[in-house]
Amino acid sequence: MIVQALKWVGGIDGFLELIDQRQLPAELVKLQCRDIEQLFDAIETLAVRGAPAIGVSAAYGLVLAMQKLNPADGLEQGLKVLAESVEYLASSRPTAVNLFWALERICQNAKDFATRQPEATVQELRETVLAEANAICQEDVDMCRRIGQNGERFIQEGAGILTHCNAGALATAGQGTALSVMFEAHKNGKKFRVYADETRPLLQGARLTAWELKQAGIDVTVICDNMAGWLMKQGKVDAVITGADRIAANGDTANKIGTYSLSILAREHGIPFYIAAPSSTFDLSIKSGAEIPIEQRSADEVAFLGDRKTAPEGIDIYNPAFDVTEARDIAAIITERGVIENPNTGSISRHLS
Amino acid sequence: MIVQALKWVGGIDGFLELIDQRQLPAELVKLQCRDIEQLFDAIETLAVRGAPAIGVSAAYGLVLAMQKLNPADGLEQGLKVLAESVEYLASSRPTAVNLFWALERICQNAKDFATRQPEATVQELRETVLAEANAICQEDVDMCRRIGQNGERFIQEGAGILTHCNAGALATAGQGTALSVMFEAHKNGKKFRVYADETRPLLQGARLTAWELKQAGIDVTVICDNMAGWLMKQGKVDAVITGADRIAANGDTANKIGTYSLSILAREHGIPFYIAAPSSTFDLSIKSGAEIPIEQRSADEVAFLGDRKTAPEGIDIYNPAFDVTEARDIAAIITERGVIENPNTGSISRHLS
Repeated sequence: MIVQALKWVGGIDGFLELIDQRQLPAELVKLQCRDIEQLFDAIETLAVRGAPAIGVSAAYGLVLAMQKLNPADGLEQGLKVLAESVEYLASSRPTAVNLFWALERICQNAKDFATRQPEATVQELRETVLAEANAICQEDVDMCRRIGQNGERFIQEGAGILTHCNAGALATAGQGTALSVMFEAHKNGKKFRVYADETRPLLQGARLTAWELKQAGIDVTVICDNMAGWLMKQGKVDAVITGADRIAANGDTANKIGTYSLSILAREHGIPFYIAAPSSTFDLSIKSGAEIPIEQRSADEVAFLGDRKTAPEGIDIYNPAFDVTEARDIAAIITERGVIENPNTGSISRHLS
Repeated sequence: MIVQALKWVGGIDGFLELIDQRQLPAELVKLQCRDIEQLFDAIETLAVRGAPAIGVSAAYGLVLAMQKLNPADGLEQGLKVLAESVEYLASSRPTAVNLFWALERICQNAKDFATRQPEATVQELRETVLAEANAICQEDVDMCRRIGQNGERFIQEGAGILTHCNAGALATAGQGTALSVMFEAHKNGKKFRVYADETRPLLQGARLTAWELKQAGIDVTVICDNMAGWLMKQGKVDAVITGADRIAANGDTANKIGTYSLSILAREHGIPFYIAAPSSTFDLSIKSGAEIPIEQRSADEVAFLGDRKTAPEGIDIYNPAFDVTEARDIAAIITERGVIENPNTGSISRHLS
């Protein structure tokens, strides 16, 4: 079974049910978000994570925010609550592009509705917001499935597939991006083994990817990040498939730290390296990877695991969140629109037009 | 200040003082081993670790064992206690070659003494055992220092040096092997920065290497293993220096898992890769790396950190302790005898003869 990271339950008076990813893999806890503050907290503390999943959750957060309106309130009051809530939720994860995009889309759609139908009730406005949130969610589900369908041919019967971090169902409203490729191959009856890099420092591979692949009945083995090269040398890896955080116009791809090393090791061992990501991941304003800013994160992510100290007090720590894989080391980029083999500025531009 | 992993305090009635490496880096706790059972426990539970440090500790363990003899006991009784203690200590870490070697050397030396001087007292036998343990310890100290002196020219002023796992003072009776090269460069007034791979799963780099370099006043930065490639890409690494667990006749080198990936990444970025190890690490009975057996270790090392679960219950885990770096990717092997540049069967054979 492919897990579902989030689900809206009921109509405009309903609630958002999330898998609490902070508790994984020790426990499967479902979190019911019944007001916007709860949802804010869930996003901020990584109970829900992954750019698409955050965007969809925030959209439903606006549905929650409008539950405090009275039926007697006018459209103007409804739009005011919406605008305040957009601003509030936007501050939960300041660098999440999908978050801003989803909030903005709901907001604009509501304004358009109010302009078109100035006599509508605030209940009708709430129905409009829920419908748009549902649309964003459904588009994400469809996008994920199409990525999987487009990429599943790259998984051969009996193959060993290496992945890094979590680009799975837990990161989206649907069945993920990189992992969607695996879910579709599995659905088509192929047998293969996935190696999940544990992905230090936050262990999304060991905690999340391994867990959701196991739930889906896919054969998965966890390795430490530093074992990937040796695994390749043993001939156990036939393809590497990861997600992406941002792709430049020339195909250079920012993804979780460690992806660059994998791309070099894959090339050295003659193993194709694939990126699976929605076409919205392309940022054509950025010409090449050299222009992609790399977020540096807190030293404590490396120096602690839970309460346990894993490095000396006050030691210097280098903790970049992402690195950039060069387009020349990417065999293909798989999107919901199709596949870009040997990606470069020309082929990417044609794919997106 | 370079830390001292172990120290014999006093004469034949003295004790062995160890840094309790299980407590690092949270606390610096000194463990006083006053009987052989305590020492057995310290070796078994990794309070003391690193092949040379284990060998020297075990040698002193035999001194402890003989403290229970009465002055009235004869040489025969002394040799009997010694033989029993050798057998007992040998079972503390079943694969530690230095352990068996040190125990055997003490035992043989004591037998030779008893044969040469059959009229000697058991007190004199105890003095002989202590003297031989001291000799083993002193040889280790000298070996470490010479490795450092032979290798320090590979560290340039202002360089960035990457290392993996812990091949430091904490692993030997002296100032280590790979880290000895850094200690000598530091002593010679060179300024440089060391990047310490945290080294999953047991984090010897983050917990031990970073700690002892910091104690010595060397500039050190901890990284996760998966950051090494990106660090090289940024131009921050000028040399990689690691220790070795076993070196084949052709120069292929087994070392902590992750070393192989580093060697490939170093070659890709044009960075020289050095091994620093005592000449006793060569195993000429093994022709090439393909013949080196690789120990698979417990899944729990990856699935838990302390009490905290880091991977799903019952998940498959691949956990090889070592990997093998190819001789062609090693710029030089540094031993206490000198330096083997571009190591191969011929140059290694000449170096050791």
